[in-house]
Amino acid sequence: NFIRGMQTVTLIPGDGIGPEISTAVMKIFEAAKAPIQWEERNVTAIQGPGGKWMIPPDAKESMDRTKIGLKGPLKTPIAAGHPSMNLLLRKTFDLYANVRPCVSIEGYKTPYTGVNLVTIRENTEGEYSGIEHLIVDGVVQSIKLITEKASERIAEYAFEYARNNQRASVIAVHKANIMRMSDGLFLRKCREAAEKHKDVKFTEMYLDTVCLNMVQDPTQFDVLVMPNLYGDILSDLCAGLIGGLGVTPSGNIGANGVAIFESVHGTAPDIAGKDMANPTALLLSAVMMLRHMGLHGYANNIEAACFDTIRDKKVLTGDLGGNSKCSEFTEAICQRVRDME
Amino acid sequence: NFIRGMQTVTLIPGDGIGPEISTAVMKIFEAAKAPIQWEERNVTAIQGPGGKWMIPPDAKESMDRTKIGLKGPLKTPIAAGHPSMNLLLRKTFDLYANVRPCVSIEGYKTPYTGVNLVTIRENTEGEYSGIEHLIVDGVVQSIKLITEKASERIAEYAFEYARNNQRASVIAVHKANIMRMSDGLFLRKCREAAEKHKDVKFTEMYLDTVCLNMVQDPTQFDVLVMPNLYGDILSDLCAGLIGGLGVTPSGNIGANGVAIFESVHGTAPDIAGKDMANPTALLLSAVMMLRHMGLHGYANNIEAACFDTIRDKKVLTGDLGGNSKCSEFTEAICQRVRDME
Ligand SMILES: CC(C)[C@H](C(=O)O)[C@@H](O)C(=O)O
Ligand SMILES: CC(C)[C@H](C(=O)O)[C@@H](O)C(=O)O
Repeated sequence: NFIRGMQTVTLIPGDGIGPEISTAVMKIFEAAKAPIQWEERNVTAIQGPGGKWMIPPDAKESMDRTKIGLKGPLKTPIAAGHPSMNLLLRKTFDLYANVRPCVSIEGYKTPYTGVNLVTIRENTEGEYSGIEHLIVDGVVQSIKLITEKASERIAEYAFEYARNNQRASVIAVHKANIMRMSDGLFLRKCREAAEKHKDVKFTEMYLDTVCLNMVQDPTQFDVLVMPNLYGDILSDLCAGLIGGLGVTPSGNIGANGVAIFESVHGTAPDIAGKDMANPTALLLSAVMMLRHMGLHGYANNIEAACFDTIRDKKVLTGDLGGNSKCSEFTEAICQRVRDME
Repeated sequence: NFIRGMQTVTLIPGDGIGPEISTAVMKIFEAAKAPIQWEERNVTAIQGPGGKWMIPPDAKESMDRTKIGLKGPLKTPIAAGHPSMNLLLRKTFDLYANVRPCVSIEGYKTPYTGVNLVTIRENTEGEYSGIEHLIVDGVVQSIKLITEKASERIAEYAFEYARNNQRASVIAVHKANIMRMSDGLFLRKCREAAEKHKDVKFTEMYLDTVCLNMVQDPTQFDVLVMPNLYGDILSDLCAGLIGGLGVTPSGNIGANGVAIFESVHGTAPDIAGKDMANPTALLLSAVMMLRHMGLHGYANNIEAACFDTIRDKKVLTGDLGGNSKCSEFTEAICQRVRDME
C-alpha cells in the first residue's frame, strides 16, 4: 500500500484522548494535503519469551521501516513489573535526544511573552540508569551514569540542531561544581562540540541559575542542552511558561534515523471520548515531525493555521479558554489550512 | 562582654558587599532595639594540620557557643583544593535543613502575586555525597546517597516547621518513579512523618510536575520538602518568582541547635564598597533568625518596616528599581522601625 510521493509514518494513537487527538491531526493533515500516509500501531508492551517486556513486534517492525512515529499519550498498565511505556520506547529505539521547543503562543495568555527556546535533553542515561543498591540497612544509593559516547552524541546533536534551525546559541546546563566527574564529563563533551561549531555561540550555566533566570526572563534563552534529569525538570518548567503540556510539542530523536514525535500530556481519562480534548500538543508535534522530514511548507501552513485559530479566540477547546468541541477546533484549523491554497 | 537580656549572635559579614549589608542590618537592629549583640567572625577556610581545610577555630568556637549565626555572601578562594565555603559550613555544623520562605513582596513587581511558600531542602547528602568514580575510560558514575536517618530528620523537620509556622500542608517532591530505592526511601520517611503529624496535610508530587505547576500558579504551594539537588533547583526557581536572590531570605538548621541564616546572593564585587548594595535578603534572613529565636515582636516590626519601605517606592536601591544608596534605604527602614514604638 505504498502511494507514490507519499511517506509513511507510524501512528501510535495511544490511550484515553489519544485516538481523538490523533484523528484531529489526521484530518488537518488531509486538509493540508500533507503527503503522509499513516500506519496505525499499538505499542502497549507485551511479555515476550522469558517474560521480558517489549513492544509488539508489528509496532517495532513498522517503526524500524518507516523510521518516523507520531505518538499520542500512553497509559502504563499497572501490571506487576510493567515498565513505563515512555522509558521502554526510549530504550527500544535508542531515542537519545528529547527536543522541546517552547514558543509563546500569541493569544494564549501566560505570565510571559516572547518565549522562544528549545530544551534538548539527553534521554538514555544519567540519573535514569536504573542502577540502585542497598548499601547497608537504611542506606541506599542510586547511580548516575555519564558516558563519553552519550554526552558527545547529545552535544553534537544540540549544535547541529541549532545550526539547522537558525538558532544562535547553545547553553550547557550542569552542576559540575558538585558532580565534578559526571557533569564534568558532560560539560567537556559540550565544550569539544562547541569547538567544532564555532558559528554557534556556546555558554555554560548552573542548573539552579538557569531555573532562577528562566522564571525571571525566559526570553534570554535559546537552545539549552543537558543531562537526563535536568532535562526532565527544565522541559516541564519551560512548557509551563508557555501554557503547559497541552500546547507543547516534543520530539525524540533516535539512532539509525528513527524519530518519534509525541504530545507529552497525559491520557486525560476523565474527558476521553467526549470530544473535548485539545489536539494542539500532538498537532505541533506533528509539525515538528514534518520539519524533521524536510516538509517545511506543509509544516508552516499547519502551524500558522493552528496559531491563527488560537489567536482568533473564536473556536477554542475548554482548556484554551473556549467552549468548542475538539472536532470544531479541528475543523476551524482545517478551514484555515484549506484557505491557504 | 555578656550583656543582661541580650543574646549573642555570631556575625559573619562575608566578602564583597557582605560588610556593608551587615552594617545595614546591625543599624536596623539597633533602631529596633532588638536584644542582639553581635560577635564578628571570619570563616574563610584555613588549612589545619595535615592540610585539611577547616573554618578558623575562633569562628567555630563562637558558633558552637552562640549557636546562631548570620552570614553574608562568601567568596570561595580559588586556591587549589579549596572547598566551597557553603559546603564546608554545611558540613562543619551539620546544617541539615535549608529553609527558604518565598513570599511575594508588595510593590516589587514580578510576573506573580500572592506567592507564599517555603522550600525545605535536605542539605547533607543525596547528589551532594561527593562520591564519584571512573568505571572504565569514558564512563563515569556519581553516587546519590540517601539514608534513612537524614530522610527521617528532614521529613520530621518539615512537619515541625509547618506546625510551628501555621502552615497547612507539606508536599514531598521526588522522582521515585525513576529512583525507586533512593527517592523511594526519602518518600517513605515523609509518609511516616505525615502519619505522626496528622494536623498537617501531606501530598506527594513529582519534581517535574512541581516545576510545571509552579510557574503556572505558585500560589497553590505551601511547604515543600525534598532531597538536596531538587532543593537546590526549586529554591532558586522559587526565589526567581518573587524577585530573585536579592530579596530572598534563607536559613540553615543544624544539629545540636545550631542555625545559620544567610543571604544566598553573591558577593557582587563590582558594586562592593560603593554604598549601592541591597541589604534586603540579609535583613529578611535576620528576621527569620529572630523568629527562630522566639523574638517575634522584633521580627514583625523589622519585616514590616522593610516591606513598607519597598511598597512606598520612595527610597529604593538600584536593583529594586530606585536610585538610593544602601545607607539611605537602611535609614528609611530605621526611621519606620523607630516610628513603630
Ligand atoms: C513518565 C516519566 C518516566 C518521564 C520521565 O521522568 O522521564 C516523564 O516525566 C517524561 O518527562 O517523559
Ligand atoms: C555554591 C553551591 C555549592 C551551592 C549548591 O549547589 O548547593 C549553591 O547553589 C546553593 O544553593 O547554596
